Amino acid sequence: MSSEQGIKLESYVRVINYYETDQMQVVHHSNYARYLEEARLHMMDQMGLGYDKLEEMGIIIPVLELHDYYTKSITFGDVIEIKPIVIKLSPVRFTLKYKIFRSGTDELLHTAQTSHAFVDTEFKPMNLKKSFPEVYEKLSQIVVEQ
Amino acid sequence: MSSEQGIKLESYVRVINYYETDQMQVVHHSNYARYLEEARLHMMDQMGLGYDKLEEMGIIIPVLELHDYYTKSITFGDVIEIKPIVIKLSPVRFTLKYKIFRSGTDELLHTAQTSHAFVDTEFKPMNLKKSFPEVYEKLSQIVVEQ
Amino acid sequence: MSSEQGIKLESYVRVINYYETDQMQVVHHSNYARYLEEARLHMMDQMGLGYDKLEEMGIIIPVLELHDYYTKSITFGDVIEIKPIVIKLSPVRFTLKYKIFRSGTDELLHTAQTSHAFVDTEFKPMNLKKSFPEVYEKLSQIVVEQ
Amino acid sequence: MSSEQGIKLESYVRVINYYETDQMQVVHHSNYARYLEEARLHMMDQMGLGYDKLEEMGIIIPVLELHDYYTKSITFGDVIEIKPIVIKLSPVRFTLKYKIFRSGTDELLHTAQTSHAFVDTEFKPMNLKKSFPEVYEKLSQIVVEQ
Repeated sequence: MSSEQGIKLESYVRVINYYETDQMQVVHHSNYARYLEEARLHMMDQMGLGYDKLEEMGIIIPVLELHDYYTKSITFGDVIEIKPIVIKLSPVRFTLKYKIFRSGTDELLHTAQTSHAFVDTEFKPMNLKKSFPEVYEKLSQIVVEQ
Repeated sequence: MSSEQGIKLESYVRVINYYETDQMQVVHHSNYARYLEEARLHMMDQMGLGYDKLEEMGIIIPVLELHDYYTKSITFGDVIEIKPIVIKLSPVRFTLKYKIFRSGTDELLHTAQTSHAFVDTEFKPMNLKKSFPEVYEKLSQIVVEQ
Repeated sequence: MSSEQGIKLESYVRVINYYETDQMQVVHHSNYARYLEEARLHMMDQMGLGYDKLEEMGIIIPVLELHDYYTKSITFGDVIEIKPIVIKLSPVRFTLKYKIFRSGTDELLHTAQTSHAFVDTEFKPMNLKKSFPEVYEKLSQIVVEQ
Repeated sequence: MSSEQGIKLESYVRVINYYETDQMQVVHHSNYARYLEEARLHMMDQMGLGYDKLEEMGIIIPVLELHDYYTKSITFGDVIEIKPIVIKLSPVRFTLKYKIFRSGTDELLHTAQTSHAFVDTEFKPMNLKKSFPEVYEKLSQIVVEQ
């Protein structure tokens, strides 16, 4: 996975746990939000924007919107690969798109989108471009126009 | 809550549990999908379409899409009231819209939408109108055009 | 449910949610810790020791030990009734025992035990009897010797 | 990690997810049961007794007892290493003990124990030694007497 500017970001791979299944014998749909979060934080971490570092700077990035499109169900033991990309960035907000594949294949299992605000530790909106221009700059380098 | 045809459906009230919070001191965003499911099954149950009854008939209703709009965060001990309505129904699919309020007030905390397929126990698409006309009829009575 | 001193405490009743099941078609065993927490906080709340009130006073009560004995499995839609009792109390620690019944029956489904420390907001051990004698006194009134 | 008989089993390493924290800023105590399950299935898998294989044979291994001893709290981003050992085995039941360390160190964070029955797909007790002597034999090779 790579942005146009040549920053190489690895996709996120993980195995489905037993306790994530429900009695329909597939992963319960609420777990996808968690997988997306794992992949998003993993991506940020690779950019030097790990959660701990952002928290230290006082930047919180809560979820404003979540959109899940369940294409194929997944089951215990499956290995999934999540590829998040940033598709929009403004000084106060950013949006990611995700594709989940069966790992090592191009079998698309799920697509999703999340939008996030930049807020301070008191949940007040923050202008990231003004408050942390270097963080904004980093994020802007991985935006993939759709 | 009521449909145009006069079927009275109660909204769904529940208290936020401690273990549903995260270190941001608010409910983790993945839990909303679970609250929506609780409210949806509660609504179906009131219509005589409880999960056990549908399962007996061989009707499974998996989630195809989930859309969450996080307006205000909620915290441990909060009491929420969820009002689901059916906004679209076809023989193979239906769509619900949800509003979550602070219980007993008109303070809107969250809106959401889910779409579902009708499938049989082997996950094959089902034409509900043909296979179970009486269930389809019941659902069609609570559709609220938007 | 009542202690020897005549304090009446209601047991805790709740319905099993769909998303708490796993592919074995029963409640996943990790959820019981959550049900016990719900019942414990519900009991404390009835004694005027709600989580928010304790937090205001700076009293945190983390779990030190958890013991679960899975007698009978429970499934989606089951209604359970949890009866917690305090079986040990010292100035620095207390222990609860729980019985989970099928609601409205004497069918025992699960027994459990949890031990807790009293700590301050910085997780330092607290002598509850010295720091908050009135809270200690309240708790001591519901101890049921085993 | 190894048994006396020289079977080499790798310990299980995993990173703590954000959504596993609670508002006390640490991992919620109910998650440990899930980590233990991950480690247990990982161990079984290494022995050629993966869940899918056991299920194919009709062997289900539900949890009878769970004991958690919370020594030190863990937080988002921590890397833990879980070392399960089988401490008891009978034809109808087996018991494991677990130690959780901060990965790459000998800092002990948590100890635990689980007991399990062997049952068939209808949850009827099974004599594993009689029904599947080769599975029983495999398990008996990794028992570590305490």
